[in-house]
Amino acid sequence: MPESEIQFETIAIVGVGLIGGSIALAARERGICKSVIGVGRNPQRLQHAIDLGVIDESVTSCSELVGVDLVIVCTPVDRIVEDVRTCFASTPESTLITDAGSVKSNICREIHELPNSAERFIGSHPLAGSHQSGFENADASLYANRKCVLTPWEDSSKHLIEAMSQFWSRLGMQVHSLSPEEHDRILGLTSHLPHLGASAIAGLIDDVSVDFAATGFRDTTRVAAGDPGLWAAIFSDNSEQVIEATEQLIETLKAYQNALVANDRAALTDLLRHAQTHRQLFEERQKRD
Amino acid sequence: MPESEIQFETIAIVGVGLIGGSIALAARERGICKSVIGVGRNPQRLQHAIDLGVIDESVTSCSELVGVDLVIVCTPVDRIVEDVRTCFASTPESTLITDAGSVKSNICREIHELPNSAERFIGSHPLAGSHQSGFENADASLYANRKCVLTPWEDSSKHLIEAMSQFWSRLGMQVHSLSPEEHDRILGLTSHLPHLGASAIAGLIDDVSVDFAATGFRDTTRVAAGDPGLWAAIFSDNSEQVIEATEQLIETLKAYQNALVANDRAALTDLLRHAQTHRQLFEERQKRD
Repeated sequence: MPESEIQFETIAIVGVGLIGGSIALAARERGICKSVIGVGRNPQRLQHAIDLGVIDESVTSCSELVGVDLVIVCTPVDRIVEDVRTCFASTPESTLITDAGSVKSNICREIHELPNSAERFIGSHPLAGSHQSGFENADASLYANRKCVLTPWEDSSKHLIEAMSQFWSRLGMQVHSLSPEEHDRILGLTSHLPHLGASAIAGLIDDVSVDFAATGFRDTTRVAAGDPGLWAAIFSDNSEQVIEATEQLIETLKAYQNALVANDRAALTDLLRHAQTHRQLFEERQKRD
Repeated sequence: MPESEIQFETIAIVGVGLIGGSIALAARERGICKSVIGVGRNPQRLQHAIDLGVIDESVTSCSELVGVDLVIVCTPVDRIVEDVRTCFASTPESTLITDAGSVKSNICREIHELPNSAERFIGSHPLAGSHQSGFENADASLYANRKCVLTPWEDSSKHLIEAMSQFWSRLGMQVHSLSPEEHDRILGLTSHLPHLGASAIAGLIDDVSVDFAATGFRDTTRVAAGDPGLWAAIFSDNSEQVIEATEQLIETLKAYQNALVANDRAALTDLLRHAQTHRQLFEERQKRD
């Protein structure tokens, strides 16, 4: 399909927040779809999203969706399975369904049990976000030049994988495929653990010391501003990997402590050099992309 | 003294790196001094700093300093005491001396033992920096609108406190006074622990997962790019506070783990909300300043 053609006439976005709103804006701006239906619980909020031009029309339940070619479920991770289930029941076989959740194993395992799941659903995780929330902060460029991970099953339809790869690519994203389990292991280390660690560090500041926190504190703890409920759901849903990654972090912190207690400057420098090398690797890979 | 007047004819900067170089540039740009002498070990590097206009002239040892009104020792924390000692010995009583070290208790305790220390030396810590290094990255605006902590002793000369307060204020900084011990407790929480935690998190990334690290990882681990030797010296010099703060971090991480193991969503949300509240407090204080 040429880049200029409409890929889906109508897309439904379930959960019109920052993520869903940004996808809606970008999909129309890039001519991937003609119209976007927003699905949410609050009619006033949905009307406001229509007034702002984020969506074209709205319904208050997935069960009301008709004539939709693609549904993207952008609700919090602990609501995705339920919403996808409703979409499976209320839309025809020809409607493709994906999600935008940050955790994939549990969600994909439960959805795989639905009838014809390999033809209709594929998990997606667009790797971009913000500590802001709400469609008022939606941004059509949020996903440009970012990565999107698809998490197909072994029996996933080739057509579906291709269609969703094309969709995210046309939003400006680099599309990768990982198994749901590998996705969760990786995101545990790259996203969930940094969030947990940043939150733990932020929580230790007190009313006096906060006045002397500077740029290092600012950047290290930025993500701790994120929504507590959303992140509690993410950690819970990836509980096994997050517990394991946290254990590795604790072990590393003990290694720093031991080097300090032993006044072993060489060991301390080695630990910091190891960290610097890994941080540099990240920067090099970012530049390469 | 009016803002427009020269406060010190000649300033010496010992250790012409990012910090010393930035102070040199800003002090002349703001008309606080007429000329800056750089002190370093490497004559080629010093000549290069002269060529770039960062300093006016140079010597290769503190013992060669003559006719200097203020010396600012900007060497790594594990070299500050030795450099200050040399400056005490080689300059007249009228030469004021300060430093820019990130740790204060040990340094100030050792320097306090020098003759006439309360009249000649006061500890300073300008709270700004960068993961970059070298005078090539020096920036006259690095300190504008940042905080500077002075760490006087109880017997510190009022004249000296005033002179150094004025100096940092004229560099654009908000000047605060803390005891060296309180400074180190606070910086342990606001700077050293975030650096240690960020480094521990960065070091856990692997060759596969690094490709999926995004903005959260980028910001949380930014400071881990810092110089391993410099930071090992800082951690070692503030060893007691860093060990204690790391212990608090480990305890907090265990609380997150326990909430996950018990699948206690409410406890997990509470921990994250506590972190969010503290992060918001930081943002409010930043805005207020």
